[in-house]
Amino acid sequence: MSLALGLAADIGGTNTRLALVENGRVREDTIVRYRNADYETPEAAIGAYLSETGKPRCGSAVLAIAAPISGTRIEMTNHDWILEAGSLSRLLGDARVEFLNDFEALAHSLENLNEGRLVPVQIPAQRPPANGTRVVVGAGTGFNAAALYPPRNGGQGTVGTGECGHMTLPVETARHLSLRDYLARGRGRASVERALSGSGLREVYEWHCLEAGQVPGPLAPAEIAAAARAGTDPLSVATARAWMDILGRVAGDIALVFMALGGVYLTGGVARSLQPFLSEPEFLAAFRAKGRQTGLVSAIPVYLLDDDFAALAGCAARM
Amino acid sequence: MSLALGLAADIGGTNTRLALVENGRVREDTIVRYRNADYETPEAAIGAYLSETGKPRCGSAVLAIAAPISGTRIEMTNHDWILEAGSLSRLLGDARVEFLNDFEALAHSLENLNEGRLVPVQIPAQRPPANGTRVVVGAGTGFNAAALYPPRNGGQGTVGTGECGHMTLPVETARHLSLRDYLARGRGRASVERALSGSGLREVYEWHCLEAGQVPGPLAPAEIAAAARAGTDPLSVATARAWMDILGRVAGDIALVFMALGGVYLTGGVARSLQPFLSEPEFLAAFRAKGRQTGLVSAIPVYLLDDDFAALAGCAARM
Repeated sequence: MSLALGLAADIGGTNTRLALVENGRVREDTIVRYRNADYETPEAAIGAYLSETGKPRCGSAVLAIAAPISGTRIEMTNHDWILEAGSLSRLLGDARVEFLNDFEALAHSLENLNEGRLVPVQIPAQRPPANGTRVVVGAGTGFNAAALYPPRNGGQGTVGTGECGHMTLPVETARHLSLRDYLARGRGRASVERALSGSGLREVYEWHCLEAGQVPGPLAPAEIAAAARAGTDPLSVATARAWMDILGRVAGDIALVFMALGGVYLTGGVARSLQPFLSEPEFLAAFRAKGRQTGLVSAIPVYLLDDDFAALAGCAARM
Repeated sequence: MSLALGLAADIGGTNTRLALVENGRVREDTIVRYRNADYETPEAAIGAYLSETGKPRCGSAVLAIAAPISGTRIEMTNHDWILEAGSLSRLLGDARVEFLNDFEALAHSLENLNEGRLVPVQIPAQRPPANGTRVVVGAGTGFNAAALYPPRNGGQGTVGTGECGHMTLPVETARHLSLRDYLARGRGRASVERALSGSGLREVYEWHCLEAGQVPGPLAPAEIAAAARAGTDPLSVATARAWMDILGRVAGDIALVFMALGGVYLTGGVARSLQPFLSEPEFLAAFRAKGRQTGLVSAIPVYLLDDDFAALAGCAARM
């Protein structure tokens, strides 16, 4: 008797995460992260992985990709790889190959969460409804969100995802508007993603420097986050606080749109890099500042999902 | 052999719409609209309807209510009626009674649209994907939206709805911010609904009057809309144009959040009362002003759903 094996892949703009799936669950001991830049093609990366893991026979493969999914040939937006279902299937010995959007995979991962990777941000006294809708909100290279609606009659829930990063950046004060104008310069508008992403963190930092009458230094997003965490650079700290204020406002709006009474799960490399600031006042103050709906959003559990491999579990859930 | 009859009800803050459903379809000849104020209780209104229609025997009733739905007893927010499933079931001879949110019913109504009630606002050259998500966006007494996700394996689609009216009012210019500050006065914030509702239309009008150095006249929302349509009052016309600009911006954001490639359906009494302004430049200019996603939103069909009874079809779809 052979085990039901599958391949899960989470292919981002910079890294590819891979794992074997056994009977619907990711095998933790098989998880790897490769740098895309080290491989010419996705076939080369996956081929190397298969060799390393002893050439397992996979009946199916589910690949989460940071790109809009349509058809059997996906061109990545932030990397020069092309994913082609036929070619990948042949590489895997005629496995069934399915593509899904990376946020769709993240939402599915909520069905089978590793509780050990959840960092509480807001835990209401009352337990949330067992069948409440949950959303995952991610800020990394880009920004997006996805909802997991509970199943109506058993089975898997429905995932709703879109292009939340392209919503209008919320502005409520003259200071917000000034930052928005900086982010919109030469572009005509500022979307949510212009702030809530790696490059967004950098631009929010530039605006803080210019406001303080200083020429922005050459810090990269990760360096701004590190300086903010260390508390060594007041402008990086102010940037982190302003960024959390925006994240709170946007996450609150998304919670209302999807009526996410079951929980809000924050994720993404930039959100994780600023984790200590989630327990400072800015995030929750903005998340809860919803007027007559303040009670509603205050009753929503909020966590940081500190798991770079969560999307792999979402792929496994779709197998 | 007896026909499978059911009762559909759409209970708003001001009016109740009722119809009989035969084999899953609303019987057009049985549709009525009652003013809630003419009846002490919902049982009195429904009892009067049953008498008028010859006391049909209904095996089931689906009631769409402008209120959050939870449990078997619903207190309306904008009217003093209480809906109680047991009492309504007894009135209907032990019929199965189901409550759903009015926007949930509207989204379900998209599954069985009366094409004759659709007014085209944006018709792209390319047909939308057959399995695209569709959203209904309504501005009436309040504001909300709901998405109809296509069914995964046949059957009914999944509806996602929330509290979209409580999202942050989008602001992109100093003028928007000034209007936002007026709508937020004494409230701490301005949600989408503070503008995109009947009372919102009135307050947007007040702001235009004050900006023009005039004391706002006593016009009610319907009178502002009528004056705008007639073109007799420049301030009402300016109000209608500004209101459409906001509706376009919000509807575009909602289209992105839900990735509503299948279509955006505008509805609600205020949106309908300003219908001629949907073909003026403001609405579509704002709807499409989504930077890198302009192509995406420009490819989405947009209609005005000019049907005050659409939610009844949504009730029938749930029977």
